[in-house]
Amino acid sequence: MWGMIATWTMALDGVTLGAEQLKSNGFAGDAIEAAIKDVEDGEYYKSVGYGGLPNEEMIVELDAAYMDGDTLNFGAIGAVKDFANPISIARSLSANDFNNFLVGAGAEAYASKAGFERKTMLTDRAKIFYKNRVGDDRQKELAPYAGHDTVGMVALDAEGQLVGGTSTSGLFMKKAGRVGDSPIIGSGLYCDRAVGGATATGLGEDLMKGVTSFQIVQMMKAGLSPQEACEKVVFELDADLTARRGKSGDLSVVAMNTAGEWGCASNIVNFSFVVATADASEPTVYLTNRVGDHMEHKVANQEWITAYFAKRQQEVEIRYDK
Amino acid sequence: MWGMIATWTMALDGVTLGAEQLKSNGFAGDAIEAAIKDVEDGEYYKSVGYGGLPNEEMIVELDAAYMDGDTLNFGAIGAVKDFANPISIARSLSANDFNNFLVGAGAEAYASKAGFERKTMLTDRAKIFYKNRVGDDRQKELAPYAGHDTVGMVALDAEGQLVGGTSTSGLFMKKAGRVGDSPIIGSGLYCDRAVGGATATGLGEDLMKGVTSFQIVQMMKAGLSPQEACEKVVFELDADLTARRGKSGDLSVVAMNTAGEWGCASNIVNFSFVVATADASEPTVYLTNRVGDHMEHKVANQEWITAYFAKRQQEVEIRYDK
Repeated sequence: MWGMIATWTMALDGVTLGAEQLKSNGFAGDAIEAAIKDVEDGEYYKSVGYGGLPNEEMIVELDAAYMDGDTLNFGAIGAVKDFANPISIARSLSANDFNNFLVGAGAEAYASKAGFERKTMLTDRAKIFYKNRVGDDRQKELAPYAGHDTVGMVALDAEGQLVGGTSTSGLFMKKAGRVGDSPIIGSGLYCDRAVGGATATGLGEDLMKGVTSFQIVQMMKAGLSPQEACEKVVFELDADLTARRGKSGDLSVVAMNTAGEWGCASNIVNFSFVVATADASEPTVYLTNRVGDHMEHKVANQEWITAYFAKRQQEVEIRYDK
Repeated sequence: MWGMIATWTMALDGVTLGAEQLKSNGFAGDAIEAAIKDVEDGEYYKSVGYGGLPNEEMIVELDAAYMDGDTLNFGAIGAVKDFANPISIARSLSANDFNNFLVGAGAEAYASKAGFERKTMLTDRAKIFYKNRVGDDRQKELAPYAGHDTVGMVALDAEGQLVGGTSTSGLFMKKAGRVGDSPIIGSGLYCDRAVGGATATGLGEDLMKGVTSFQIVQMMKAGLSPQEACEKVVFELDADLTARRGKSGDLSVVAMNTAGEWGCASNIVNFSFVVATADASEPTVYLTNRVGDHMEHKVANQEWITAYFAKRQQEVEIRYDK
């Protein structure tokens, strides 16, 4: 068995690449890196890599993590500027026994010395989004931080090796130096070869309160299916945060176990994710919604997928020109 | 009932301060901040605050976290230079709905604007340790990263409010930008008013692999006593890391539940911790060791405590003068 699951429709091309590697007996870690690099390189995805939206100082700061379920080795970076592929930097750090999580200037110094590709990650398109937001904020009160599109993936290869990865530019208009859940082992990502892996996207500050990805893996370890584990953790965290705080941020998760079974849960409408397994003819995009006490997944048809990509690529109106 | 538990004997004065507040019906969060500030201000503690040992570039970089078990609110900072009291910065961030974890230059900009006290945190004494280590490394192979003294505390107040905090300068000779488990919610710290709290010290990279503090709280939630939960999580993680990787780093934890019951476990010899509760006449230092499948705690007598503080304050030999 082999399989791969990823957050958001934007991961479709990346998962297609990764699945080809897994089908040819490739290593799950290579599939994860190739798939996430594809999303990072895509300039139309506003919360990952190149073209990611900047922080409140109009600087793009990137977070990423990589975790190997065999050894529990992980590498992670936070608040890193201007490197083309954060996932590759994170993966390289996972080979170390110490210093696996590097942030800010120290992480950039490491990446420079290690020869990772420098790239100006702020695009003209992202600048338009930033200037429009700043202009709008001057005129009226906007709900802050709407939208989140972190890419998170878990891959299982034919050898039973299980690897996960995440990459994000984080919350649009975040404070400089803000780190979300994506590089945090346990919250944004967790993988254990003996059980399975999970990854999260949404409001990082709330996902961290629930240590979400680790909790899903623990539920799978206790015998729940990936789908049961995802539902239990998301529904309970949503209810708990609402009870304690009056509200919950967006919480969306995907998981896969070592049998290649998968699950997804979300507290938002029409959360989309991508799955590829040895059993399916090709990678499939699903849309999911909560109905009562479970999630209902529906296959997204080609028309919906085409519209999704077209929408991301449509021209951005320049509403404020300075 | 009220109570407080902290890692390492160096926390004795801080816990004494905090316990006085708790005894007078003070808020657990105030007790935590006062107690950890006391440790941060102590120049003889080599892994926390002022006098903390620097990274490989001879720069002191500080990590801290604060978590409120009521709301699950948390604040955390990583890789921050030259602020007197990291715990206070972390606490102030916990009031926000977003941007709770800030690192590096962004965190420093926040702390400057918020008016937190700047302080040169590298002491002459710490410089001697650094130069001695660099000199020794040139002459022979030294085991890297020996020693770890992160302060972590959990406090329960008379109102049943539960708050935890951590503060550390991290691994001696770490890479610039390295962040350990201390500011990571779930690994270095976790608190839930409905259950209890836990905090960890040791090799951060290994504590993160086990998402240690959250796991202890989950075990207490499932019905284990704090002592049972600490033992189960530390012994299983030690065994798991040894099986997967051939070795485990230092893992030491303390926990307290909402009844004021407490626990501690460690895989090192003579790990020391401090406990104060409404039931005891004064704060007590314990030394603990694993014996078979459980920990044996012994009260440290005054002679041992006096020797501990004397050792930390003894003059450091200057072995390399440039």
